[in-house]
Amino acid sequence: MEPVDLRELLEQVQAGRLGVASALEKMTAPVVADLGYAHVDLQRHARCGFPEVIFCQGKTCEWIEGVVRQLHEAGQHCLATRVSDEQAEHLAAIFPGAQQDRVARTFWLSFGEPRPPVGRVTILTAGTSDLPVAREALVTAEALGTNAALIADVGVAGIHRLLRHRQEFMGADAIVVAAGMDGALPSVVGGLVDCPVIAVPTSVGYGAAFGGLAPLLTMLNACSANVVVVNIDSGFKAGYVAALIARRAARVH
Amino acid sequence: MEPVDLRELLEQVQAGRLGVASALEKMTAPVVADLGYAHVDLQRHARCGFPEVIFCQGKTCEWIEGVVRQLHEAGQHCLATRVSDEQAEHLAAIFPGAQQDRVARTFWLSFGEPRPPVGRVTILTAGTSDLPVAREALVTAEALGTNAALIADVGVAGIHRLLRHRQEFMGADAIVVAAGMDGALPSVVGGLVDCPVIAVPTSVGYGAAFGGLAPLLTMLNACSANVVVVNIDSGFKAGYVAALIARRAARVH
Amino acid sequence: MEPVDLRELLEQVQAGRLGVASALEKMTAPVVADLGYAHVDLQRHARCGFPEVIFCQGKTCEWIEGVVRQLHEAGQHCLATRVSDEQAEHLAAIFPGAQQDRVARTFWLSFGEPRPPVGRVTILTAGTSDLPVAREALVTAEALGTNAALIADVGVAGIHRLLRHRQEFMGADAIVVAAGMDGALPSVVGGLVDCPVIAVPTSVGYGAAFGGLAPLLTMLNACSANVVVVNIDSGFKAGYVAALIARRAARVH
Amino acid sequence: MEPVDLRELLEQVQAGRLGVASALEKMTAPVVADLGYAHVDLQRHARCGFPEVIFCQGKTCEWIEGVVRQLHEAGQHCLATRVSDEQAEHLAAIFPGAQQDRVARTFWLSFGEPRPPVGRVTILTAGTSDLPVAREALVTAEALGTNAALIADVGVAGIHRLLRHRQEFMGADAIVVAAGMDGALPSVVGGLVDCPVIAVPTSVGYGAAFGGLAPLLTMLNACSANVVVVNIDSGFKAGYVAALIARRAARVH
Amino acid sequence: MEPVDLRELLEQVQAGRLGVASALEKMTAPVVADLGYAHVDLQRHARCGFPEVIFCQGKTCEWIEGVVRQLHEAGQHCLATRVSDEQAEHLAAIFPGAQQDRVARTFWLSFGEPRPPVGRVTILTAGTSDLPVAREALVTAEALGTNAALIADVGVAGIHRLLRHRQEFMGADAIVVAAGMDGALPSVVGGLVDCPVIAVPTSVGYGAAFGGLAPLLTMLNACSANVVVVNIDSGFKAGYVAALIARRAARVH
Amino acid sequence: MEPVDLRELLEQVQAGRLGVASALEKMTAPVVADLGYAHVDLQRHARCGFPEVIFCQGKTCEWIEGVVRQLHEAGQHCLATRVSDEQAEHLAAIFPGAQQDRVARTFWLSFGEPRPPVGRVTILTAGTSDLPVAREALVTAEALGTNAALIADVGVAGIHRLLRHRQEFMGADAIVVAAGMDGALPSVVGGLVDCPVIAVPTSVGYGAAFGGLAPLLTMLNACSANVVVVNIDSGFKAGYVAALIARRAARVH
Amino acid sequence: MEPVDLRELLEQVQAGRLGVASALEKMTAPVVADLGYAHVDLQRHARCGFPEVIFCQGKTCEWIEGVVRQLHEAGQHCLATRVSDEQAEHLAAIFPGAQQDRVARTFWLSFGEPRPPVGRVTILTAGTSDLPVAREALVTAEALGTNAALIADVGVAGIHRLLRHRQEFMGADAIVVAAGMDGALPSVVGGLVDCPVIAVPTSVGYGAAFGGLAPLLTMLNACSANVVVVNIDSGFKAGYVAALIARRAARVH
Amino acid sequence: MEPVDLRELLEQVQAGRLGVASALEKMTAPVVADLGYAHVDLQRHARCGFPEVIFCQGKTCEWIEGVVRQLHEAGQHCLATRVSDEQAEHLAAIFPGAQQDRVARTFWLSFGEPRPPVGRVTILTAGTSDLPVAREALVTAEALGTNAALIADVGVAGIHRLLRHRQEFMGADAIVVAAGMDGALPSVVGGLVDCPVIAVPTSVGYGAAFGGLAPLLTMLNACSANVVVVNIDSGFKAGYVAALIARRAARVH
Repeated sequence: MEPVDLRELLEQVQAGRLGVASALEKMTAPVVADLGYAHVDLQRHARCGFPEVIFCQGKTCEWIEGVVRQLHEAGQHCLATRVSDEQAEHLAAIFPGAQQDRVARTFWLSFGEPRPPVGRVTILTAGTSDLPVAREALVTAEALGTNAALIADVGVAGIHRLLRHRQEFMGADAIVVAAGMDGALPSVVGGLVDCPVIAVPTSVGYGAAFGGLAPLLTMLNACSANVVVVNIDSGFKAGYVAALIARRAARVH
Repeated sequence: MEPVDLRELLEQVQAGRLGVASALEKMTAPVVADLGYAHVDLQRHARCGFPEVIFCQGKTCEWIEGVVRQLHEAGQHCLATRVSDEQAEHLAAIFPGAQQDRVARTFWLSFGEPRPPVGRVTILTAGTSDLPVAREALVTAEALGTNAALIADVGVAGIHRLLRHRQEFMGADAIVVAAGMDGALPSVVGGLVDCPVIAVPTSVGYGAAFGGLAPLLTMLNACSANVVVVNIDSGFKAGYVAALIARRAARVH
Repeated sequence: MEPVDLRELLEQVQAGRLGVASALEKMTAPVVADLGYAHVDLQRHARCGFPEVIFCQGKTCEWIEGVVRQLHEAGQHCLATRVSDEQAEHLAAIFPGAQQDRVARTFWLSFGEPRPPVGRVTILTAGTSDLPVAREALVTAEALGTNAALIADVGVAGIHRLLRHRQEFMGADAIVVAAGMDGALPSVVGGLVDCPVIAVPTSVGYGAAFGGLAPLLTMLNACSANVVVVNIDSGFKAGYVAALIARRAARVH
Repeated sequence: MEPVDLRELLEQVQAGRLGVASALEKMTAPVVADLGYAHVDLQRHARCGFPEVIFCQGKTCEWIEGVVRQLHEAGQHCLATRVSDEQAEHLAAIFPGAQQDRVARTFWLSFGEPRPPVGRVTILTAGTSDLPVAREALVTAEALGTNAALIADVGVAGIHRLLRHRQEFMGADAIVVAAGMDGALPSVVGGLVDCPVIAVPTSVGYGAAFGGLAPLLTMLNACSANVVVVNIDSGFKAGYVAALIARRAARVH
Repeated sequence: MEPVDLRELLEQVQAGRLGVASALEKMTAPVVADLGYAHVDLQRHARCGFPEVIFCQGKTCEWIEGVVRQLHEAGQHCLATRVSDEQAEHLAAIFPGAQQDRVARTFWLSFGEPRPPVGRVTILTAGTSDLPVAREALVTAEALGTNAALIADVGVAGIHRLLRHRQEFMGADAIVVAAGMDGALPSVVGGLVDCPVIAVPTSVGYGAAFGGLAPLLTMLNACSANVVVVNIDSGFKAGYVAALIARRAARVH
Repeated sequence: MEPVDLRELLEQVQAGRLGVASALEKMTAPVVADLGYAHVDLQRHARCGFPEVIFCQGKTCEWIEGVVRQLHEAGQHCLATRVSDEQAEHLAAIFPGAQQDRVARTFWLSFGEPRPPVGRVTILTAGTSDLPVAREALVTAEALGTNAALIADVGVAGIHRLLRHRQEFMGADAIVVAAGMDGALPSVVGGLVDCPVIAVPTSVGYGAAFGGLAPLLTMLNACSANVVVVNIDSGFKAGYVAALIARRAARVH
Repeated sequence: MEPVDLRELLEQVQAGRLGVASALEKMTAPVVADLGYAHVDLQRHARCGFPEVIFCQGKTCEWIEGVVRQLHEAGQHCLATRVSDEQAEHLAAIFPGAQQDRVARTFWLSFGEPRPPVGRVTILTAGTSDLPVAREALVTAEALGTNAALIADVGVAGIHRLLRHRQEFMGADAIVVAAGMDGALPSVVGGLVDCPVIAVPTSVGYGAAFGGLAPLLTMLNACSANVVVVNIDSGFKAGYVAALIARRAARVH
Repeated sequence: MEPVDLRELLEQVQAGRLGVASALEKMTAPVVADLGYAHVDLQRHARCGFPEVIFCQGKTCEWIEGVVRQLHEAGQHCLATRVSDEQAEHLAAIFPGAQQDRVARTFWLSFGEPRPPVGRVTILTAGTSDLPVAREALVTAEALGTNAALIADVGVAGIHRLLRHRQEFMGADAIVVAAGMDGALPSVVGGLVDCPVIAVPTSVGYGAAFGGLAPLLTMLNACSANVVVVNIDSGFKAGYVAALIARRAARVH
């Protein structure tokens, strides 16, 4: 509870307009829905600008369904990631109005009228195999209310493929770059633009890529100063942060 | 060279206002100063919003001096990082007007009248030992023209130390969090705000911190969706990206 | 054999009440049941306060059954962990009186009248996916005769979820914290209490979590001084040590 | 602030015995001393049972002196670890009454009359080279008010060296085992006792010990269920947790 | 576009033989086929001496088919690697004239009359299990137009097996050595010849081979100066570079 | 060819008893059977004291069959390891006289009359799950003609289990110790005997055992001077070297 | 000894022109100079095309001097790398005619008249700090008799710096690329040329560059097919292989 | 105490020839000298065939002196390894009769008349820089009473250097191979002999040798079945085990 609210509450108690028990309850009132297996954080939207997002891996269909219901009933958007085929079918039957992207493995159930998107997020991939991660970023950036676009397969082995799209991505507020193998693309992109580049290493590749470790290290050591990094295959987080930047640039925060 | 410029140039050639040799020269004209030991990228400011920054580690005083001169003569700001004691003295004698911060190990030689700072960047540290990295971020964010503030030693072992500063950092456009050891602070901060958090692992700690590897992994796995990561001890990069975000939020880009 | 027992035995030999052969046999008598594939340590309860526990992974149903029988016939409790579905069915048919928890994957066959539980162990999880590990800790702590409770999904991304349960866990004799991903929760909990915190990293997460390595390192580097660590996913060991501490606090040892 | 205190405070406000401003101040009053370079956590003793401990590595003499003064003036004990030779001399001149152990590299300035020690902590080392880490544990356990004893050089290459001390360490409430190289000692000790064993890997050894990584992994995989682990060379943390357990066993908490 | 071409183009514009729009189009004309999911690099053959090669792992049959068609229609050779059984069947039905090697997992669809092979590439394997990787190198070297031969199972545990083939491989322009386990073969071969040795570590082996990491490190540290290394299991890249060297030696470039 | 043989051969040529062509053939005669997919080393028994052993992993049934035939026809013993179920059935049908151990996954086809075993090899395991690796060592040591015995499940968590078998293993010429998890057993055994101890880490365990890396490092750092190490799960190699030592001690080499 | 020589020798013995003792001596004659501390390989030039090169690290001045003398007296070129300041001074006094490059830390003492250089090797560096490694490659390539050129500081953060030098490096027979940090340059260069690219990771960088591990992994995973890799900081090996390729292309082998 | 001794002792008690107190003392009598900082294991020679060896790293001169004295006074040989310059001088002054090897960094003080050496140990090194490790093995093997010889610099880059010494090392009872960089030598040697090969990786090399990790992995994966491995740079352990094997072969154990 913030000081400004505390002051008002104390003044009401002082004025006798509010009893001690009621005041105490308000000060310690739950903003969390306890489902036993999960504490749904209903205050996240107010605090962080977007509701809690469900990471579905390793959870039962019933647990996921429960959290979706809880968020929806609380009048909040609901985004879920890493949705398995089985989970996707289970949710589709219960929430037919939700949008599911099976390449991105996402579930999206919005609440209320959609607002027009703001800002610009561009997502690039080094290869075709990086598409699932890139699409998770795309869905997330759109769920957060931004204009998002995806340009696939413009890796550095044919640098002209990238350069010819330069006009498109130079205008972005934030750029997501998904790349596996050598993970060299973010360094090159970073040197061409004046906005932050969120690099997301993918587990694409074999041998000494070590499940994404190689591009992860490449990106952390990017020689361009505007490159930041998220976890391996975490298209979600990349799209999330890119959208936060774009919304802020558009003064929607 | 961008298509729009190419078109104009071609029209001049067609109209006979420009000879082929001159046109060819313009199309391939150097925007790089070749000093033999370095190619100074004079186009970086136009392209990326800030001039090339000098990473001093492993370079001779003469090389650094040469690049500083080149940038300054080209009318550009000059920021240098990882300045050793010897390099600092060498530069101080030649560029007495520059600002040097020996905790941050930075050198800053601005060009022209300073513009009023915009946006808000807040820098937090988990412990006292993270201060050098945090100050590098501070100097960088200020060099990029943003309002920057630093709050030290608010690590998670005493969570109330952080919570009492919440009002201060909640208003930021971007937050930098420098932490060594367990690197847990960015996760907690990320859950309290609606702006991006740039986490910078420091090599502070002993034993299984493995030179910063432990907090690096912690931060990459942060359970808060708005946390991105830069290289170990890279206060520079963290401050740089935070400033890019803040400038964009303030519409200065 | 302890000196005090040796003295008595020698005095009996001296007094002629005991023959050399019998004395020799007593001094070297087996306290181990050799089943060929296993040496069941029947002295463990006397020595360590709890009988040998069976780690079922990689063992045949017959081997496990044999060890359970051996312990039960020797009048000892029998706890088994990492029980597969196939092993669980096999054991259920033979020992119908045993308790099996399929989330925790445990088997528990007590011997004799249960004693009232003592001490207090509290188990926290950062997320819903940490539940199997946490329940293994719960079953183990209860098997060792302590009062144990579990609070799920109170990770640091929503720090208030944790703080509102503070009263509950502050009274514990020992706290187990199961967390994957960034593994940041034990550091925060450690700073709020005056009892030991046993941190157990889980293999939950993806990418740079590297199968639990990331939270393991985080926990080893915890900035709170009262945090100790056990192996990845080892809910058993965490619950075991927490119970030892709680029993000792309750003077049951 | 806990609910029980909140209730009392609200009742005072309601009764008009306390003004809103004063109530507000109490509810948000600082329990932290902000020195600029450090936030000294003065509430730690009340919350965690022992004041904040100063980790001296990477800090200036002035910073350390400042925090020691702050704690001492607040009437709290002051323990500092990893004290360099230079820091030790600086502190000795200012706080001549403090106890410094140059093998353990500790500084200890107690406040008020010492209370008689309680409980029993035993510290074992595998080799002679593990002594500095072991002594850090010893000093810490004593600072926390427990009876602590140290038995050196009883590694497993001569198992009888350990077995002959068995009577001594079997009575402990908690045992600290410091070992480098193969780190095998805690597993053996764990199988001989019924109390928790806190294993602390040391960076002693060469080649494939990899700075303590080898014994760290050994200890995390200890086949004895009562072994928990702390960071490499962290004698402090091992002694701290051992003392917490011993104090609790002695009902001093 | 190269300066020499630019000059000609500008002269045509100057001379009025070429309009501005046409010139502009030529200067920015696509040399890439954008299929949505892939940017096929049609300029690769001209630039690098061989068309783009398709890495099939993680791609749908439709995507692969699309790229093969695109290359074939552009009159280019088409080589694909890591072709799964399902992909192989799909492609066989559509491109019956293509050659597929199921041990090497390759697909090869040449265009036009084959030219006689030039140069000499020899491929050695340490063991029988390295054959799939070696055959991928063989197919690739042949696709690039060189004479290639394979000698299997001549590892260092029986050094005479290697020495008796010495005459055969001494005449090569480049040698590929595929080896798992200890990866010692390239060092020995390197000391016997005067041409480059391209070492390719295989993931053959168990335990501490760590999926090819062991032979990778061995090869990077080869004491023979003429040994270079490619990624684990990357027979393709080894064969590719060996062929580039052989072609150059034969003056075909 | 050894000098002593060369001399004789040259003398025969000089004496005219041997033609140049014949002499040349003898000097370069193959001692290797080239099957295309394998070079069977028929000289290994003469050179190393035991024929080539077949590592079956990743090989086709036909390849294995071919090598077995080749060795058998050359009048040599044939040992194969890591035999899969499918391979085992294939070989059983063709070589019904061979001995197969499905726990050890070995195939053993001896040639000629067995000689009485010599020397003594003892194999210890820390746990029941280490049995497959230990049995591979047992079969191998017996194939090499030594007396071998196996004692299972005597890990250090109950050190008396080991000590009571001390008489048995003290008389061995070489001891193999198979252990997973903490891998502490070889250090303890090494301190009790005067013969070499061959430690073989197993991939048994979970979490931070990292597939056998933990016990591997433990064993490499064993504080007992007589402990040497082989690859993870390599029961074969451990048994092989133990047998070489025992045969040499028995003067059979 | 090769068959063709053997035949001639045998014929001489048969014809009585050569005694058995002499023949035997010829067949086993030493081609190695045994200095006690080193076996100088005098046959290396004949076998591998260049004499043995001295790696000076960890050797005494006397040892190095001894090997240089031996090579020089045998009429061979002598190249030494990693020459320390002390070693350089020692050698300069004894071999005043040798060329030493203190940036590259090399020593070069040629024998006989130099032949005109052949072929073309181009060496690129990503940054200024990569110069020492690059110069070691340069000196080596020149010692092997090729034309070599160096272009410094053309990393990918300013891709136009590289592109403007394209004409220069496109004509090379082999390209060496030295890069630290993200190591992304070889991938980009590889996509622009049709010759092999030898990538050499440097230990330049900080934090997660892990002493060159990051660029090493990047380069092994390079998405361009013509990139091969040598050890970290091994400018020598990169220059060596590049020269072998260039000499072969120029038919000098 | 062994059963056979126990029986005799019990019979003496029974017969009244030995009192209970005396019997008890004998059964628990110390065979360890407790110096406070060390427990000197005086039973090691009887148990393991050689007295305790002093690892000097990280110990004070006084501690080392104390242990040497203790062993010498107990009539035992005394070997110390990793003796620093300072320690060497200290010991030389006190024990002038001891032999010190400053390349091997060893101290050797024998007791009583030397016995004629038995068995044969051969030590090979891949390069000149491996000499210190190899000499530590040499000194150790000689201290254990075996005939030991050293052949330096016969690495695989010039395989004939090794082959010409084949006769020398083929007769050994055990071979030690010290190698850094690629660590390939043991695999080759193992394939040429019928005795055990003890491989010792050295930390010689640079870049991706990672302080000896690369040769360590190579050796663990050696394709020759008779290769076992000891810790990085552990010449001591390699020489120790080689000598145990040679003594056993010579029936001296």
